[in-house]
Amino acid sequence: MPDMAEQKATNIVWHQGAVTREDRELLNGHKGCTVWLTGLSGSGKSTIAVALEKLLLDKGVRAFILDGDNVRHGLNKNLGFSPEDRTENIRRIGEVAKLFTNAGVVTLTAFISPYRADRDQVREVMDAGDFVEVHVHAPLEVCEQRDVKGLYKKARAGEIKEFTGISAPYEAPEKAELMIDTSALSVEQSAQTIFDHLAKAGLLPA
Amino acid sequence: MPDMAEQKATNIVWHQGAVTREDRELLNGHKGCTVWLTGLSGSGKSTIAVALEKLLLDKGVRAFILDGDNVRHGLNKNLGFSPEDRTENIRRIGEVAKLFTNAGVVTLTAFISPYRADRDQVREVMDAGDFVEVHVHAPLEVCEQRDVKGLYKKARAGEIKEFTGISAPYEAPEKAELMIDTSALSVEQSAQTIFDHLAKAGLLPA
Repeated sequence: MPDMAEQKATNIVWHQGAVTREDRELLNGHKGCTVWLTGLSGSGKSTIAVALEKLLLDKGVRAFILDGDNVRHGLNKNLGFSPEDRTENIRRIGEVAKLFTNAGVVTLTAFISPYRADRDQVREVMDAGDFVEVHVHAPLEVCEQRDVKGLYKKARAGEIKEFTGISAPYEAPEKAELMIDTSALSVEQSAQTIFDHLAKAGLLPA
Repeated sequence: MPDMAEQKATNIVWHQGAVTREDRELLNGHKGCTVWLTGLSGSGKSTIAVALEKLLLDKGVRAFILDGDNVRHGLNKNLGFSPEDRTENIRRIGEVAKLFTNAGVVTLTAFISPYRADRDQVREVMDAGDFVEVHVHAPLEVCEQRDVKGLYKKARAGEIKEFTGISAPYEAPEKAELMIDTSALSVEQSAQTIFDHLAKAGLLPA
């Protein structure tokens, strides 16, 4: 059994040898970052995230999507839709995205995230350059016409309260790194535009 | 602008092409999993996690440590040490570990996690085989003698309430995949033992 002095020395040696974010990024051949997609329901966030993840994987880049499917039913299943819970929802997602970013993963988040203060808070907890805010934009009429999940119809009928764009505000980004207009660009073009931005920022392999 | 039919068709195509966990594991050349280290303060959880992460990286395996440093000050900074908050602390960590596991990362967690029910709950939310519980064991006297952070001294002096092993229970695992006795094994041997277990379970490259 090691005595305390040995134990301490061992700790020091091992902590000096600890794996860093740079080690992980070197192994991966690309940087970690968070691509934060924000926009109205139906603007195309999830669809673009899926297309972008595929594009990244095909280039050997590790990516992972955080979205309602894997967060609202898991980590944040004890949160509702009150203003406080919405803020806590985004705060937790931001902290998880930060962990993934530090793990060297290109993290894609697809949440409406309607409040500017909440998104800015996430930007603040991250290191400079790690947070890439992408405003996925389409006119409300277009999103409502798409209505993939039938949510706008329910919101208009008053069956969903505080629905972003209808009965609750969407605060558009003022300093997003990118704005994607999905009423003008195809899914493929949208994903490629974000990919090109990441490549230009030096986050992807040359 | 695509009409609704086109939009839907595009969604379907892209979702069929969505990246799966298997795709990520294929790219990485290894599986994702969660190695859940549980044990008394001073038993060696964090030290072993750091050593194991290095061992994994040197073999080209992507690993990431979730520990007090990056979780208690971030995701779980709004939680205290009441029984409810301890349970929520472990629940959230478990959900994040699940996300990392699905991202194809060998996730190492280093938390005392004293309650059996909390650990079993994490095991339950994971897919079978994804959760590798490792009891990092040393006799209380040994942990107390090490007292790397001076916490046992404070607990004995009554300055810390409900300290696991002194004034709060530690419920040892009954069905852990591994038990590591750090009063008998060195840090290197402990890390290697876990590594060998993961390799034998087919989670690492041959």
